[in-house]
Amino acid sequence: MSKCVLGVDFGTLSARALIVETQTGRELGTAAMDYPHGVMDRALPDGTPLPPDWALQDPADYLECLSRVVPQALAQAGVRPEDVVGVGVDATTCTLFPIDANGAPLCALPELAGEKHAYAKLWKHHGAQAYADRMTQVARERGEAFLARYGGKVSSEWLFPKLWETLDQAPALYARAYRFIDTADWIVMKLTGAEARSGCLAGCKAFWNPRDGYPPNDYFRALDPRLEHAVDEKLSRDIRQVCTRAGFLTEEGARLTGLAPGTAVAVGHSDALVALPAAGITGAGRMLMIVGTSTCHIMLDDRERDVPGICGVVDDGVIPGFLSYEAGQSCVGDHFDWFVHTLAPEAYAREARERGLDLHRLLTEKAARLAPGESGLLALDWWNGNRSVLVDADLTGLFMGMTLATRPEELYRALIEATAFGTRLIIENFEEHGVPVQGITACGGIAQKNAFLMQLYADVLGREISVARSAQNSALGSAMMGAVAAGRAAGGWDTIDEAAAAMGGVRPGGYVPDPAAHAVYDRLYAEYRALHDWFGRGGSDVMKRLKQIRREARA
Amino acid sequence: MSKCVLGVDFGTLSARALIVETQTGRELGTAAMDYPHGVMDRALPDGTPLPPDWALQDPADYLECLSRVVPQALAQAGVRPEDVVGVGVDATTCTLFPIDANGAPLCALPELAGEKHAYAKLWKHHGAQAYADRMTQVARERGEAFLARYGGKVSSEWLFPKLWETLDQAPALYARAYRFIDTADWIVMKLTGAEARSGCLAGCKAFWNPRDGYPPNDYFRALDPRLEHAVDEKLSRDIRQVCTRAGFLTEEGARLTGLAPGTAVAVGHSDALVALPAAGITGAGRMLMIVGTSTCHIMLDDRERDVPGICGVVDDGVIPGFLSYEAGQSCVGDHFDWFVHTLAPEAYAREARERGLDLHRLLTEKAARLAPGESGLLALDWWNGNRSVLVDADLTGLFMGMTLATRPEELYRALIEATAFGTRLIIENFEEHGVPVQGITACGGIAQKNAFLMQLYADVLGREISVARSAQNSALGSAMMGAVAAGRAAGGWDTIDEAAAAMGGVRPGGYVPDPAAHAVYDRLYAEYRALHDWFGRGGSDVMKRLKQIRREARA
Repeated sequence: MSKCVLGVDFGTLSARALIVETQTGRELGTAAMDYPHGVMDRALPDGTPLPPDWALQDPADYLECLSRVVPQALAQAGVRPEDVVGVGVDATTCTLFPIDANGAPLCALPELAGEKHAYAKLWKHHGAQAYADRMTQVARERGEAFLARYGGKVSSEWLFPKLWETLDQAPALYARAYRFIDTADWIVMKLTGAEARSGCLAGCKAFWNPRDGYPPNDYFRALDPRLEHAVDEKLSRDIRQVCTRAGFLTEEGARLTGLAPGTAVAVGHSDALVALPAAGITGAGRMLMIVGTSTCHIMLDDRERDVPGICGVVDDGVIPGFLSYEAGQSCVGDHFDWFVHTLAPEAYAREARERGLDLHRLLTEKAARLAPGESGLLALDWWNGNRSVLVDADLTGLFMGMTLATRPEELYRALIEATAFGTRLIIENFEEHGVPVQGITACGGIAQKNAFLMQLYADVLGREISVARSAQNSALGSAMMGAVAAGRAAGGWDTIDEAAAAMGGVRPGGYVPDPAAHAVYDRLYAEYRALHDWFGRGGSDVMKRLKQIRREARA
Repeated sequence: MSKCVLGVDFGTLSARALIVETQTGRELGTAAMDYPHGVMDRALPDGTPLPPDWALQDPADYLECLSRVVPQALAQAGVRPEDVVGVGVDATTCTLFPIDANGAPLCALPELAGEKHAYAKLWKHHGAQAYADRMTQVARERGEAFLARYGGKVSSEWLFPKLWETLDQAPALYARAYRFIDTADWIVMKLTGAEARSGCLAGCKAFWNPRDGYPPNDYFRALDPRLEHAVDEKLSRDIRQVCTRAGFLTEEGARLTGLAPGTAVAVGHSDALVALPAAGITGAGRMLMIVGTSTCHIMLDDRERDVPGICGVVDDGVIPGFLSYEAGQSCVGDHFDWFVHTLAPEAYAREARERGLDLHRLLTEKAARLAPGESGLLALDWWNGNRSVLVDADLTGLFMGMTLATRPEELYRALIEATAFGTRLIIENFEEHGVPVQGITACGGIAQKNAFLMQLYADVLGREISVARSAQNSALGSAMMGAVAAGRAAGGWDTIDEAAAAMGGVRPGGYVPDPAAHAVYDRLYAEYRALHDWFGRGGSDVMKRLKQIRREARA
């Protein structure tokens, strides 16, 4: 039997395992499981209410899912544990939580079950916005070099705002924490027993790079004297390059997964960046667009450029020798889910049930019957703020153009169009700042499943979009990392380029823009861009003032 | 037995009859019925599709409802036909349709059943916007005196744009029409056999006033040579003062209603203006706010002033010696209905059913638990354009401030708040232009039934609001007109002041603003006003461009 590798992908709502044949990329077995506690954004499990803008997870859910999905995938693949030569892990990032000296999350301690700062602050936790703003301000005042590489603005989704929020609001908990750790690094720690932090994660979300390391302690002291030694006290300066081995499965790791002790484990990865090699991208020019609950837009390039609003220019973050630029829309599929869960009317729910469709499919079917521009609607896709290019979590959603004849599918389609306009703006921003986008490959659940949305994106962008071959691109990318961690001698691969060539790639065919639709979307996009700049770039700060009034009303 | 009068009110969705004791205002019997064809805004009864912005009715529905609700109300009241000494009629206006020489609507002719221009163009029919715009432009160029009295802008909801639209788009039908007539005038014609057109309707919607009559034929010729003699050819210059008798019930009128032939019938009235005396308002200083599918805000004053965006300054339109100023929001309850019908989720529909509530009540209950500002949402209440103060049917709705945690009741409440902000802006506009608003009385279905909404309005306005005593204020006002048509000698009253004093008034108590809520709403209103001016006064014409793109996409 040929050798296999395992990739495990920890997404926003679920974890999935994928067993892949190393030589061919053939996917032999897969399993997924939703996190038992999902995303906690209203209350902790014990009922403690959460402030607005919070989004937490329980790290115990990650282990529970891991211990179920890997054996299931193995069973489906019909391979023996010893045929799996390497393991790779990716997760959402920065999804940060405090652990004790044994690596146990502090929220698992009974006396801390009601302490919100003890849980994992999910990537889309926005409670730390004020800390992010202050970090930006101080970095600007001090002329910190790192800032330009991160789009000129610190996002509340990154590591240090979340860390500082905990320090400031729960200092005793902060003091009690042995370390704070991002999810993929923690899973690798659980598997290998070693703290082998990923250069990709540190580079993407914690201002680290291989030349300069972290920002200087002076900067952290200027923020808050208690933060001065945060890197040494609560993180680590021992950062590992991705596409390398973190260690080998311990007995505990083997018990968690059902794999053989001693199996090679790769350094952890971001669920976004790890998808590039899976889609066959190992060089400059082609954008990977991962379309799911949120969308990441990733480009490799061999030169460093300052692209405003683009997060995480990471040296060697994916492929050695290349920088990776990561833009993102913090809310894409989440928009559509919000609509379905909040505003899909009873008649539609009934029709969907009777026809055996889910509501997304029904709304998509109805939306697909509309012509571009026919609804008269326009939306701003900011239900979860704007990551790129404005880097502003205080922006909020907008619907415009409603009449008494407006129907649900028109609003649903307007949300889809708004996310497409947001992507177009990101692409134009890349190109305006010297990173040409010569092609686009899409992956992620929505790209795989929703042909209507992909065609609409092609029509809005006026560009052909190809789709990655695998339906589980992040897990496949992690499996490739596992193959490289194992090495060719053990049945894996020595480099990520080899792994990508053997195991990755795109589907035949692609989505080709319709010129007539594109012409209408050019006009709508001009309106989108004008509203985007008006509400997002200071024309009117009404959204921020509404959020301020909301905060006071809830206080 | 003491004498009674009958009022019949033709609203947007239904007709209602009310039998009232003349001496006391006691309501003895009432009945209502929905129009069988309702509002036709997508297709004619034969399936002929309608363009966007159209809203039609079938006048046969008015007669069918009339012939049912009057006998029902009589039966409930337990009075004999001969005890009813007078009849008054009001209707939505301008709701215009062509009739033949026998007074039959042209749409009743089988060969015209598929001709959309043959139906009644409902007050909120907006298909004639281009004609309204042209009328404004030409009136401005020619310095026509009437324009200032109508807020400086011709609304597509008024008579001449609708008439011209028919002439221009269906000239053969226009030629075939003996007359075009507004609904209340037509009902009076059916009851009395006489064409006794109302000075209130002509004044409100057709630029007529008792001093100058209609605009000069020159003006109409400048619009379109075919329109030059439209008043003489298709309308009438024989205009009657309200609070007078139009005639007496004919045999046909008696058959239609079940009343006695020879009963006095008043000149027809607007469903909005006729409500003033019913609420006890017969002089200057107090605004009547009729809150229903749309809202009218009516003031009497003894001096003529130009108030921008205020429609229909009508001499003697309600009470002799006073001018009446009518502002309006073209979509109020319609907003809430749209939300319930379009976006109320299945779980809410189920909860409402299980608890025996209608969805409005459920959403109101949930919305009432929110504090002002808590949702972070803001809306512009323009789903059906903006009547006052912008007089622009091409404006559309806006929702802003949504996050992934936004719930249906928050959007529902934001719509209610937006209509309250719209009313506040109308009041401020009155006062800024010399018409002081010293008190507010509300009437209409929503004012009667929705205490939450009325309290919210009081909080937004920062003013106490009293509520008219009758739940059927327009029908009561029409009944008063019937009483005056009969005269005191016949068991009615000689003047409307006498009738109002005996039969009208407000409930004890009222809605008193909460200072803390008002303070929050002051801040939200400032944001509303800024958005209102930005999108409504030329800051950005994006809404109009979206409508243009929509028109092209649907063409």
